[in-house]
Amino acid sequence: MVENNIDKEFVTIIKIGGNIIDNPAELASFLADFAALEGKTILVHGGGKSATKLAQSMGLAPQMIEGRRITDAPMLEVVVGVYAGQINKEIVARLQANGLNAMGFSGADGNLILSDKRNHATIDYGFVGDVKKVNTNLLASLLDNGITPVFCAITHDGKGQLLNTNADTIASELAIALSAIYDVTLIYCFEKPGVLFDAEDDNSVIEAIHPDLYSKLKAEQAIHSGMIPKLDNCFNSLSKGVQQIRIGHHRMLQNKRATYTTITL
Amino acid sequence: MVENNIDKEFVTIIKIGGNIIDNPAELASFLADFAALEGKTILVHGGGKSATKLAQSMGLAPQMIEGRRITDAPMLEVVVGVYAGQINKEIVARLQANGLNAMGFSGADGNLILSDKRNHATIDYGFVGDVKKVNTNLLASLLDNGITPVFCAITHDGKGQLLNTNADTIASELAIALSAIYDVTLIYCFEKPGVLFDAEDDNSVIEAIHPDLYSKLKAEQAIHSGMIPKLDNCFNSLSKGVQQIRIGHHRMLQNKRATYTTITL
Repeated sequence: MVENNIDKEFVTIIKIGGNIIDNPAELASFLADFAALEGKTILVHGGGKSATKLAQSMGLAPQMIEGRRITDAPMLEVVVGVYAGQINKEIVARLQANGLNAMGFSGADGNLILSDKRNHATIDYGFVGDVKKVNTNLLASLLDNGITPVFCAITHDGKGQLLNTNADTIASELAIALSAIYDVTLIYCFEKPGVLFDAEDDNSVIEAIHPDLYSKLKAEQAIHSGMIPKLDNCFNSLSKGVQQIRIGHHRMLQNKRATYTTITL
Repeated sequence: MVENNIDKEFVTIIKIGGNIIDNPAELASFLADFAALEGKTILVHGGGKSATKLAQSMGLAPQMIEGRRITDAPMLEVVVGVYAGQINKEIVARLQANGLNAMGFSGADGNLILSDKRNHATIDYGFVGDVKKVNTNLLASLLDNGITPVFCAITHDGKGQLLNTNADTIASELAIALSAIYDVTLIYCFEKPGVLFDAEDDNSVIEAIHPDLYSKLKAEQAIHSGMIPKLDNCFNSLSKGVQQIRIGHHRMLQNKRATYTTITL
């Protein structure tokens, strides 16, 4: 059950993906808006297209098994370089220029996010991690010292192995862990203005989803299938203490009149 | 002048280069020895050959002007990916496995190392930085919280630009800055067992160099030319408060009977 968090400080965790990272104008506008947010903030970024491009330029072919991308050793080296190096440090340097004391992390840094290498009965995903534990105390101490953590989608297993890890999952696991100390809002930015009644109509944003409405929407098949695991994941995070989750386009950070979907218990 | 530092805590800063990074067995042995060191430690690593290899595999030709390597924009992207991503996170993950709470940084992270883009009268070095300021308070707070910082040779200009920066210089600037708070020993690991009387004879290590001996060795031309800027840089660091500098092979960390050169005022 969610407690009454009146006395807790606020933390906002924002996850961005390729639609922002791959577009220089969107990224610049997002970073300025992010830097202007009040209170403690954390940024989690996905990868975008540059890892795939770099892998191709090196002659690496994407490994796919049953439609799933496999992270073999050469691909892990590429994604670590691109996610933890190029994208993470570019974002950190630009947030610094925007006046924010950003610090970029993989999960290995400070043992901030420990993962298990995925162990699947039939598919060997390669060097892919599922989050096991967040170093909440260290993360809280960084936040309390005015640092804005910027996480890339790389974690480690504590035994010396780096692991490619889903950025949405990193954002939700950080949110759940920090809920023990802070009043956490988690914001997923994507290319759409929110969860849509009609996937083809950007004007059909559902402003608020709570468990009853969600059951109703699922029963009516009003939510398209790709959104169901995302929303299941959101309700799971809320049940573990996250105060509020928003899904929408990053313009919601700047324009208070922009629509987005709020998900609450 | 150097004060009497009896009451200061000790910090050991170690710089490693390509001879360790490019050799898996040497790297594993070094990381185990580094993790076993007592007290507060900082690691600074150079790049090794992998950035050059990656650049070549991408079809980038090294830009050289007057014998100097130039860091143009595509090369900067490569070195940021390799130094701040691949090498830094690999080292951090492996130090974590060795029981050390390592955290990897570029100078942009936490604004830990601010640089000026090099402004040379006749050569445009590209995106190369000269260190201007170390964020000593934040670095000290990390050390005091049990973190072992691991620095790659990338800094930033505070205006959003990442800069390729000499790893020896980063090590010495960190040492000078931290000398205000700690009793700092700076150790440069390289392929030789120390500063040699005879560059061809590894058994000719000079055990201790102080300013009088250094003047004498220079006058007698007993030190080969490449070592002179390194030693000048060491004496500069010592004059700015660094307690002691050692130069030698990394086996000195493990084997107390190994020779190395100690440089003091």
